[in-house]
Amino acid sequence: MIAPDSFKGSISAFEAASAIEKGIKKSFPAAKTITVPLADGGEGTMDTLVAATNGKKTAVTVTGPLGKPVEAFYGILGDEKTCVIEIASASGLDLVPEKERNPLITTTYGTGELIKSALSEGFRSFIVALGGSATNDGGAGMLQALGIKILDKEKKEIGFGGGKLNQVHKISLENFDPRIKESHFAIASDVENPLVGKSGASFVFGPQKGATEETAQILDQNMTHWANKVKEIMGVKLHNMPGAGAAGGLGGAFQAFFPSVMEKGAEVVMKYTRLKEQLAGADLLITGEGQADFQTAFGKTPMRAAQAAKNMGVPTIIIAGSVGKDIERLYQFGVVSVHSIMTRPMTLAEAMESAPELLEHTAEQVCRTFFK
Amino acid sequence: MIAPDSFKGSISAFEAASAIEKGIKKSFPAAKTITVPLADGGEGTMDTLVAATNGKKTAVTVTGPLGKPVEAFYGILGDEKTCVIEIASASGLDLVPEKERNPLITTTYGTGELIKSALSEGFRSFIVALGGSATNDGGAGMLQALGIKILDKEKKEIGFGGGKLNQVHKISLENFDPRIKESHFAIASDVENPLVGKSGASFVFGPQKGATEETAQILDQNMTHWANKVKEIMGVKLHNMPGAGAAGGLGGAFQAFFPSVMEKGAEVVMKYTRLKEQLAGADLLITGEGQADFQTAFGKTPMRAAQAAKNMGVPTIIIAGSVGKDIERLYQFGVVSVHSIMTRPMTLAEAMESAPELLEHTAEQVCRTFFK
Repeated sequence: MIAPDSFKGSISAFEAASAIEKGIKKSFPAAKTITVPLADGGEGTMDTLVAATNGKKTAVTVTGPLGKPVEAFYGILGDEKTCVIEIASASGLDLVPEKERNPLITTTYGTGELIKSALSEGFRSFIVALGGSATNDGGAGMLQALGIKILDKEKKEIGFGGGKLNQVHKISLENFDPRIKESHFAIASDVENPLVGKSGASFVFGPQKGATEETAQILDQNMTHWANKVKEIMGVKLHNMPGAGAAGGLGGAFQAFFPSVMEKGAEVVMKYTRLKEQLAGADLLITGEGQADFQTAFGKTPMRAAQAAKNMGVPTIIIAGSVGKDIERLYQFGVVSVHSIMTRPMTLAEAMESAPELLEHTAEQVCRTFFK
Repeated sequence: MIAPDSFKGSISAFEAASAIEKGIKKSFPAAKTITVPLADGGEGTMDTLVAATNGKKTAVTVTGPLGKPVEAFYGILGDEKTCVIEIASASGLDLVPEKERNPLITTTYGTGELIKSALSEGFRSFIVALGGSATNDGGAGMLQALGIKILDKEKKEIGFGGGKLNQVHKISLENFDPRIKESHFAIASDVENPLVGKSGASFVFGPQKGATEETAQILDQNMTHWANKVKEIMGVKLHNMPGAGAAGGLGGAFQAFFPSVMEKGAEVVMKYTRLKEQLAGADLLITGEGQADFQTAFGKTPMRAAQAAKNMGVPTIIIAGSVGKDIERLYQFGVVSVHSIMTRPMTLAEAMESAPELLEHTAEQVCRTFFK
């Protein structure tokens, strides 16, 4: 069973799985392999789930994070019932040129439009992958796109972006899309941060989305105002709720306004790729990621895959770009060993460029050692 | 069985063996390990053999390569009968500051004195490790120290160094130490180069000993003259003899004047460390070296150890600093797999500095995979 995460910044989970498979076939041409590329709920999750279930993707033109039209996708799983919304597709950081990144103005409106479009196609079962957003608008944009009125003192709709949340005077659910209530949202996210405060969305994730120290301050104040208003209308106190700070507060919006369950990204992916069922009878699980270290043991994808394998009596080997400290912590999850793909002293750039060959080579050597 | 070569420029075979042992003990504290550090006949061979057999070393003050006194050592193996002469100890490149390296003047006289001293202590069985010499004197210096007269037209002893070999008019064996004939010399060398010509000692090894292009030319001419004279007196034609070019022609001197056998360095080391006998009953041989690649398959120490292990039905894993191309060639020698000690992108300097920890870590992971 070959089930790697992506090697971030280098190769996708698909490319990794294919390289590992090549390495195995090189040492054991007759080996039976199953490849299940994994994801952690971040970018790539939609593609992983669609491919793993033989699903498809639908393109929709929506409002991008800067207010301009972008072509976004939602995924439809092989069951033809479950729809995957990846925030990065409509409201992602990659859609904003580096110089224009500014969470004071970026909006999740497009994500709302994407959901609306899927609702109109009849979908009621959603998986939402929260990684990679460009926004810090508390999900206000998404809610607006789905009919919720977010008004200022003059009863006018507030504009886009986290910079406008301080103007929220009234939230009206009157025109909220009724199909939302009929739906179910599985929110895939590994982020435990609350909505506001020093460990909240604005301070922790604002900077990587373009916020300066000062704007992060403003964003946090605005978000607190927003959380107060959400509390008033929905009775849900998002301020310190774990996970509410995911995707610039979008995690909180789902929790307050949507029938939703927060789930670990890797668990959602494993559920829909049927990793556990497919592990039955396997001799070995090979998983992998860019950097394996003590953090891996705290719930990253390879650890979760290893744990699932352990429950099925299948040992796990992890192959990683870099292997860091304290990997012994992984042994309790059924991990036999952890191997780096490096074959000689080299730079990070060299390693990233030759990742497929290095991974193939390492998988071959590791399998030869394991199955000798 | 833990039997690595040294990781050249980084750690000795002893340090490597100890790091590998630590890694194994970390994964399997109850594992029974035997460590046999190996060598290829080059520098470190004497120490390896002495340590492997619980032998000792004797210090002798001799004439260094530049004519000044140096403290050199010969080794005495645990059998108390076999003496190890390492050329590098009395006539080594490391004894000459980089700026003073000049094979026109460097001499092997000290190596002759070292042998003489050992003969006087009663030794008649010698292992000679040819690696690391600073010289290109055809072994003339060594022969002079052992009583052979090498005279110019005016019947005066020629001076030290390859620059004087063109003056050789007559070689007289009259006072040649008679104990040499009673002795046996096993010459450990992997060098196949002839004594003269483009692939001879002067052109191939001269430059790394300080020869310019011009001096290499002179050295080769002088060496040809020397070979002609040796042919006259001994009847042995060293010119194109394989191995005669080792250690600046010292290899040829042993072949022409001494009761000697040329042997592969690694084979000599394996014989005296009794590697083969100790492999009986082992589950796995772990060997290693600085760089494992296609050249390894052409007779480097790890390949020879692997082959010995294969003959005993023991599989081999190689752990190396760098793993290069075409290592598949090693599989035919019973090599299961080849692993690099790198755990992440890093520079050569970083890798060399942390080699013991990296090696320990890799040995642990590899053993966990192999013995899972």
